[in-house]
Amino acid sequence: MVLNIGIIGLGFMGSDHVKRVATRINGAKLAGVCDLKKDLAEKYAKKYGAKVYENGIDLIDSPDIDAVMVVTRPHETHEQFVLHAIEVGKYVFCEKPLTLTAAGCKKIVDAEVKHGKRLVQVGFMRRYDPGYVEIKEAIDNHTYGEPLLIHATHRNATVDETYDTSMSIIETAIHEADVLHWLLGEDYESGTTFLPKKQTKFTHSKLHDPQIITLDTKSGVHIDLEVFVNDQIGYDINCSVVCENGIINLRSPFVTSVKKGLHDSTYIPADCTERFKTAYDLELQAWVNGVLADKITGPTSWDGLVAMVTCDALAKSRDNDAKRIPIVLPDSKPALYE
Amino acid sequence: MVLNIGIIGLGFMGSDHVKRVATRINGAKLAGVCDLKKDLAEKYAKKYGAKVYENGIDLIDSPDIDAVMVVTRPHETHEQFVLHAIEVGKYVFCEKPLTLTAAGCKKIVDAEVKHGKRLVQVGFMRRYDPGYVEIKEAIDNHTYGEPLLIHATHRNATVDETYDTSMSIIETAIHEADVLHWLLGEDYESGTTFLPKKQTKFTHSKLHDPQIITLDTKSGVHIDLEVFVNDQIGYDINCSVVCENGIINLRSPFVTSVKKGLHDSTYIPADCTERFKTAYDLELQAWVNGVLADKITGPTSWDGLVAMVTCDALAKSRDNDAKRIPIVLPDSKPALYE
Amino acid sequence: MVLNIGIIGLGFMGSDHVKRVATRINGAKLAGVCDLKKDLAEKYAKKYGAKVYENGIDLIDSPDIDAVMVVTRPHETHEQFVLHAIEVGKYVFCEKPLTLTAAGCKKIVDAEVKHGKRLVQVGFMRRYDPGYVEIKEAIDNHTYGEPLLIHATHRNATVDETYDTSMSIIETAIHEADVLHWLLGEDYESGTTFLPKKQTKFTHSKLHDPQIITLDTKSGVHIDLEVFVNDQIGYDINCSVVCENGIINLRSPFVTSVKKGLHDSTYIPADCTERFKTAYDLELQAWVNGVLADKITGPTSWDGLVAMVTCDALAKSRDNDAKRIPIVLPDSKPALYE
Amino acid sequence: MVLNIGIIGLGFMGSDHVKRVATRINGAKLAGVCDLKKDLAEKYAKKYGAKVYENGIDLIDSPDIDAVMVVTRPHETHEQFVLHAIEVGKYVFCEKPLTLTAAGCKKIVDAEVKHGKRLVQVGFMRRYDPGYVEIKEAIDNHTYGEPLLIHATHRNATVDETYDTSMSIIETAIHEADVLHWLLGEDYESGTTFLPKKQTKFTHSKLHDPQIITLDTKSGVHIDLEVFVNDQIGYDINCSVVCENGIINLRSPFVTSVKKGLHDSTYIPADCTERFKTAYDLELQAWVNGVLADKITGPTSWDGLVAMVTCDALAKSRDNDAKRIPIVLPDSKPALYE
Repeated sequence: MVLNIGIIGLGFMGSDHVKRVATRINGAKLAGVCDLKKDLAEKYAKKYGAKVYENGIDLIDSPDIDAVMVVTRPHETHEQFVLHAIEVGKYVFCEKPLTLTAAGCKKIVDAEVKHGKRLVQVGFMRRYDPGYVEIKEAIDNHTYGEPLLIHATHRNATVDETYDTSMSIIETAIHEADVLHWLLGEDYESGTTFLPKKQTKFTHSKLHDPQIITLDTKSGVHIDLEVFVNDQIGYDINCSVVCENGIINLRSPFVTSVKKGLHDSTYIPADCTERFKTAYDLELQAWVNGVLADKITGPTSWDGLVAMVTCDALAKSRDNDAKRIPIVLPDSKPALYE
Repeated sequence: MVLNIGIIGLGFMGSDHVKRVATRINGAKLAGVCDLKKDLAEKYAKKYGAKVYENGIDLIDSPDIDAVMVVTRPHETHEQFVLHAIEVGKYVFCEKPLTLTAAGCKKIVDAEVKHGKRLVQVGFMRRYDPGYVEIKEAIDNHTYGEPLLIHATHRNATVDETYDTSMSIIETAIHEADVLHWLLGEDYESGTTFLPKKQTKFTHSKLHDPQIITLDTKSGVHIDLEVFVNDQIGYDINCSVVCENGIINLRSPFVTSVKKGLHDSTYIPADCTERFKTAYDLELQAWVNGVLADKITGPTSWDGLVAMVTCDALAKSRDNDAKRIPIVLPDSKPALYE
Repeated sequence: MVLNIGIIGLGFMGSDHVKRVATRINGAKLAGVCDLKKDLAEKYAKKYGAKVYENGIDLIDSPDIDAVMVVTRPHETHEQFVLHAIEVGKYVFCEKPLTLTAAGCKKIVDAEVKHGKRLVQVGFMRRYDPGYVEIKEAIDNHTYGEPLLIHATHRNATVDETYDTSMSIIETAIHEADVLHWLLGEDYESGTTFLPKKQTKFTHSKLHDPQIITLDTKSGVHIDLEVFVNDQIGYDINCSVVCENGIINLRSPFVTSVKKGLHDSTYIPADCTERFKTAYDLELQAWVNGVLADKITGPTSWDGLVAMVTCDALAKSRDNDAKRIPIVLPDSKPALYE
Repeated sequence: MVLNIGIIGLGFMGSDHVKRVATRINGAKLAGVCDLKKDLAEKYAKKYGAKVYENGIDLIDSPDIDAVMVVTRPHETHEQFVLHAIEVGKYVFCEKPLTLTAAGCKKIVDAEVKHGKRLVQVGFMRRYDPGYVEIKEAIDNHTYGEPLLIHATHRNATVDETYDTSMSIIETAIHEADVLHWLLGEDYESGTTFLPKKQTKFTHSKLHDPQIITLDTKSGVHIDLEVFVNDQIGYDINCSVVCENGIINLRSPFVTSVKKGLHDSTYIPADCTERFKTAYDLELQAWVNGVLADKITGPTSWDGLVAMVTCDALAKSRDNDAKRIPIVLPDSKPALYE
């Protein structure tokens, strides 16, 4: 059985998913594409034998499309497509962030709960990264005792002029907001965002860079996270979990090392599609397998909501002199997501 | 379009390929299986919705099977199935070694040449490993100047009692025999196999372990290779290419590191399916893509023959006090393989 | 010319210095020792041909002693010996902390200023560690642009029952309080100490472990420091300086790596005398050279005072719910210390 | 007690030892220097308060000199000074190689045996390197079972025009010839030197570079050694001892790592005085301590002879098409050296 997939949005991440679905995922077929840039849609359609749709709604409605991927920019456009997919009862994979507001996420959660069945998976691919998976197994198995602290960095080589101070949280730290509480298996209690006085000369007037975030969980695990999006060195993701009996560190993958000119060096990935290539592949394969089996298991709308509520608290802290802000989730997690 | 694949042989490697084809390869469908152990065939057939065939010949002949994978043990059984697949004109992927004799390999090459079209791909998966690929790119691009020397190790955690002295070459070193001349883009001139007086206590009377192999290429690159199949530490594959301007080293993949009890450590894979998981996946995906496009590009029957001729020379050296033995290929490479 | 050195205090650090002075430092001679434990003094005196003194004051006063090292415990005993050495005009090396209060440090500074010549060197050995020195050179030379952030950890394998919550700052973090502003070449603006809710089970009721400290410098460099003194893994000192154009990391020294049982591992030092052996040697050699040349250059009484003022601010923050506390130095740095 | 040391020869190594003796060794005093280049001798004498001697013989004969270091170039000049020191009964430290012929070494051994007391220490500093020491302890304690194989590389960044093919053995491989059998605690049985056809473009007509050496010990441990003296990358010394239960690797020391421009890198030392700085210091300290105690323990004249006999066999193999050459020591080791 082959799953006919339609992809809405063919930008940086969308085009990466197009290639993935068309050439690397078992049981998947790229059946349809659409983008505001028609020529882009035509290009991929031709290359992989898919159909071009006029717009996302048409694609979702098409009887030739079994399941939908929403990879549109700007991110606020996610919401309408995800809601429409729920309405017509189709499985939908939505790149992170689910939407840009907690209210929007809540609307999706409510729609899905009303529908009565999980249809939405959010693109928090790090949960599929072999490194994070290995750390989660160690934590779940208490291999090194109880986790006490996490030190994390989320660094990008560079960002463009449209990336502003708010995006350090909502575009970037959101990954850690999701993956770290998932690692620990518990919710956050509070968070802070501190803007150090000294910034890199490689930033611009609209972007405070770097930023320092902390999160504390219900049980009291303390997390610090450096967000630095103009590091000039590459996409440098680190995560060190300090446990009672040992420390487990995420390691950036490399396949060779080189000795040259008085230095022995290994490679740092240039961006997220390179660093998390395996994670993205495993994520999509799991989603396709889940849809074909009519039972998906990946990050939920609720996870999307939790991440956004967390980001909101961090933004509030940033705007209030790094004050500690409680992270309060809506009433209770619907049974659908247990 | 989906490729219906039949797999003959469901042992250690066969079962690994079954899972790969059935769950990780785009465009592939596990359509048929067979094995002397019927219950094994029934098990996988049931699990993945494939058909059980009485024997390899029936599977190859079946109109429901588009392409064939030969993963049988002992390896001398490869030959008949590969030849039959060529006879009926079906694409066939054969695990290494292609057969156990140069004469057998030559028979396959001749059959394929006579057929007039490449149908056979040999399972030298290392050519797809991202590490070796990165090294090959560096060599091809002269990134570090000309290659001068290669130091390699091929180490296994342990082997069973059926593994004897000859297998260190024909089962183990054969991987390097293939991948190293492919890396360098040239043929071997000669080789030696030296049996050091001191052996590990973990070996048995039929197995001299470790063994030291050298290979020299036509241009004069000198290679040394340690084959040690009871290393007690894991599957430890190393390859260091010493060039004029730098040294590039293959690095074993790991995704976390752990600090514990006065040590900071990373993981060493336990076996080849773990170490080369990505390589096996890429290999099969490339094969499936190639078959679907009616043009395969992976390791050829000729490569299988070259590896076996190399192994024969190394065995001769081993039996002649480590004498340097010329490595002489048959007359000339058929045009089919250029 | 040989410097006759007398050492007061022969405990863990004192005995380490005894061995250093007697066997590894050029131009040094262990001339005298004293300790409340007479047998200890007798032992070292006999072993290295030194004289035993009744008490520290006698040792300082002795014409046979050219220069003095104060390594006594508890640390509040430092003050009297250092003041006495200044009084009699002898060079004195004092292990850190100089004393346990800012007032005590100020008294020493004042005495030294009144004397009109530098006589005191404080045992902040990290300034001599080749790793920190390499980092300082990179910062001073702007090799990687301006420093923006520092992430540091100060971890001990374990501490005994006498080590309480206050000591995480005054015994442990004091090293970073000194070395990090020295690295950056500027003073601190403010600091915080946060006690995470979740603690290790290996601590005891009088010790909150781990603790998280932050420091911000005048120019706005932000520092976070994990102090974890029951890490169970060893003496694990890390320091990562995030600059505009690159990140420089302190690396723990090791001289071999071992592959064994599916792991490739390197050694983590057990304690500070092992980790900073080279730094201690270089520190003492520099001190002896300085004394023989009648011009010492190492960490000053003022540095001892700055460290203590910093520790006081951190302690105040710890006792006030992690409130940010300004770090305010006494009026101005005396010319003696420029 | 202070040892008055005279140093003959103030070139690259000699000047390094001058600084060491004058500023880093406990119990040592630089008392005298001499060199054919008078101005060099004057410079160091002035800098460190030592006396200049007209020639090596005068220096050795001087009642103001307690012990002598011979660091002259060319190496054949070592012999006369060492023999003269023995004649007058003074301790003498001689840089490696002891002399350039086995006959010359034998003459020194005979003179020392006749004198009846060890007076000569040869500068095989690697025996003092903490990495090699750690490996030796592991071998001696059978920590990882029996050693089976050793892979070693001895690489230099570059050499000048006076360095020819013979020196790859006699100047460079001689270090491994000494240290590897010392590590293993046994003598060599045979050796080979192979000149690969392909050489680096950075060599010149008188120098075949790289070269491949093998050594087999009496018990059957097999060693391979790459000598590559124009590697363009630095002074890259590796030694991997493959044992039955694990593999222990020498690691080049570094104190920081840097992330910059898509690479994470560590430093490779530029030359031997940088790589083995600690080893040289420990070596000299041990020698001074030994002389002051009238009982030296470092590498002996016999070790110098063994190294030279080994080099002679390797040279013979090189000149005989890489033929395996037995390594035969003179009759028996004199009791003096047990």
